[in-house]
Amino acid sequence: MAEAEPERGSMSSLRDVIAARPRVYRYLKPTPLYQYSGLSTLIGAKVWVKHENHLPVGAFKVRGGLNLVAQLSAAERGSGLYTASTGNHGQSIAYAARAHGVHATSAVPQGANPGKVAAMRGLGAEVVFHGEDFDRARVWVTQLAADRGGRYVGPTEEQLIHGVGTYALEIIEDLPQVDVIIVPVGGGSGACATAIVAKSINPRIQVIGVQSAQAPAIQMSWAAGKAVSADMKTIAEGLATRVPFENTQRIMRKYLDDFVLVEDAAIEAAILLLLEHTHNLAEGAGAASLAAAIMLSRKLAGKNVALVLSGGNLSLDQLRRLFERPRTPAAQG
Amino acid sequence: MAEAEPERGSMSSLRDVIAARPRVYRYLKPTPLYQYSGLSTLIGAKVWVKHENHLPVGAFKVRGGLNLVAQLSAAERGSGLYTASTGNHGQSIAYAARAHGVHATSAVPQGANPGKVAAMRGLGAEVVFHGEDFDRARVWVTQLAADRGGRYVGPTEEQLIHGVGTYALEIIEDLPQVDVIIVPVGGGSGACATAIVAKSINPRIQVIGVQSAQAPAIQMSWAAGKAVSADMKTIAEGLATRVPFENTQRIMRKYLDDFVLVEDAAIEAAILLLLEHTHNLAEGAGAASLAAAIMLSRKLAGKNVALVLSGGNLSLDQLRRLFERPRTPAAQG
Repeated sequence: MAEAEPERGSMSSLRDVIAARPRVYRYLKPTPLYQYSGLSTLIGAKVWVKHENHLPVGAFKVRGGLNLVAQLSAAERGSGLYTASTGNHGQSIAYAARAHGVHATSAVPQGANPGKVAAMRGLGAEVVFHGEDFDRARVWVTQLAADRGGRYVGPTEEQLIHGVGTYALEIIEDLPQVDVIIVPVGGGSGACATAIVAKSINPRIQVIGVQSAQAPAIQMSWAAGKAVSADMKTIAEGLATRVPFENTQRIMRKYLDDFVLVEDAAIEAAILLLLEHTHNLAEGAGAASLAAAIMLSRKLAGKNVALVLSGGNLSLDQLRRLFERPRTPAAQG
Repeated sequence: MAEAEPERGSMSSLRDVIAARPRVYRYLKPTPLYQYSGLSTLIGAKVWVKHENHLPVGAFKVRGGLNLVAQLSAAERGSGLYTASTGNHGQSIAYAARAHGVHATSAVPQGANPGKVAAMRGLGAEVVFHGEDFDRARVWVTQLAADRGGRYVGPTEEQLIHGVGTYALEIIEDLPQVDVIIVPVGGGSGACATAIVAKSINPRIQVIGVQSAQAPAIQMSWAAGKAVSADMKTIAEGLATRVPFENTQRIMRKYLDDFVLVEDAAIEAAILLLLEHTHNLAEGAGAASLAAAIMLSRKLAGKNVALVLSGGNLSLDQLRRLFERPRTPAAQG
């Protein structure tokens, strides 16, 4: 019997995600999916939270890093990996590189957050300061990688998407009756991975992306069907993308059922609601899925809803500011 | 070949903990043990955190509840379980009872924390208000259980200790070279379980208990070799025990290498340090192990140290108060 042709030769498939599983689970355990009665009452639905904040480095991206690093050639292993990020992508590559005994270099702009630089170094990565912003650091490190014959790893590479998809498979295994999965979108790897997995298994599962209204470039590009750039002023670093990535846009346009924007104030309120109801710390991106569910609560009524808490890397100063602020009914944002 | 006689007929053994594993893992996954470079630098040792806060109901005790409820007789299943607690013990029994389709009743005093009452009810337990404090609620519900032929479940029953011991086995499986395990002590089930498991596998593993200096009854009883009661003014509900339990005292006297007291101010500082370095919310009891490690850092230098983050159920108001307080160097408390 001939195998079915993939619909588009170059698009990632469920098969790639399944193949990633042993590479990912060699180093980490599946994360829990818990139902919370308080959040369920708040939304008027059956609300589960997928705890990607429980992973090493505190974010879903480590799954992608592990899948990518496991597949390096001997030459690539020898010449090392290069990224430009002090965020979850950079930490994920640093973690996976260390696990496999590969050298990782991360370029960051002058004045990058010292706590995050320390976290990268704690994971064994070499951190190099260069330039005044991340774009300059990225351009510089891409050239450095080329000069040294090393591999530059961008944030939405296919092997990263395949590794990330393992969390979506876990959601559907733990909750086969899931109706809606809400996923925060930064570069789009999480939303793409979730959409590929969910639609391949059960096309009736709705996959909804969410970005901040204070950094809407990816959502606007998705809605317009072409690349759009937009202001980027969000407090949620994990959602702050200025220019869309072609590969994730293509997948999201094919598969996402909806893609919404939430205000930063609603994200901040959602961080406090998650602390209150789940006792988990979420970073802005990680709380955006709850903020979206609150906004969409009419549509979600009575459904089985999984919220991806994509990461927990909020700094103590960021959290402190949430408590120092006068209380407002921003949760309804 | 004859089996070795247990050293004391009535004392729990490693065998009981191993037997508990399938009953526990039917409903939950092993929790991660992560090394944190920031905490390791702070203590001057290799510091791992055992994330019992990642469990359902956010605390280690659920392991014990699952082991106990799985072994109920048909008659006990029919007549239900009775506790007096809105804390982690009560939630643990409620969770396990629901998982097994058994009715759970929890007595609480008038004016008990509404958030915790809601959490118990969210887990399907019947919450009954009675009396002015927990002692009265406990006496009343013990009689109620007797009248109805139901089973009252106290916080340090042997089957609870056996279930709880599964986390200690996980620590040693993940980190066979562990030198020291620091465990918060409320009733003592966690410390007893850890000590039984660790000493049975490798007697050189040091097990250190910690309680608050603002609620030292269990530590003082351990040190004195007889029951001592003491004031109870700690902010860490999970460490607040007024009168020692005979069974856990017996095990702790036999096995614990040390048992220290930390000031509430040091516990509060440790909650913030855990948020900063691990992005996990700890309740007071859960942070006491880090507070103890900071106090004992000279003794721990260079060692492999596992800190049990026993639970994460800190309320939003409790956390808010930590941020509203003027900053002091209390971490050295």
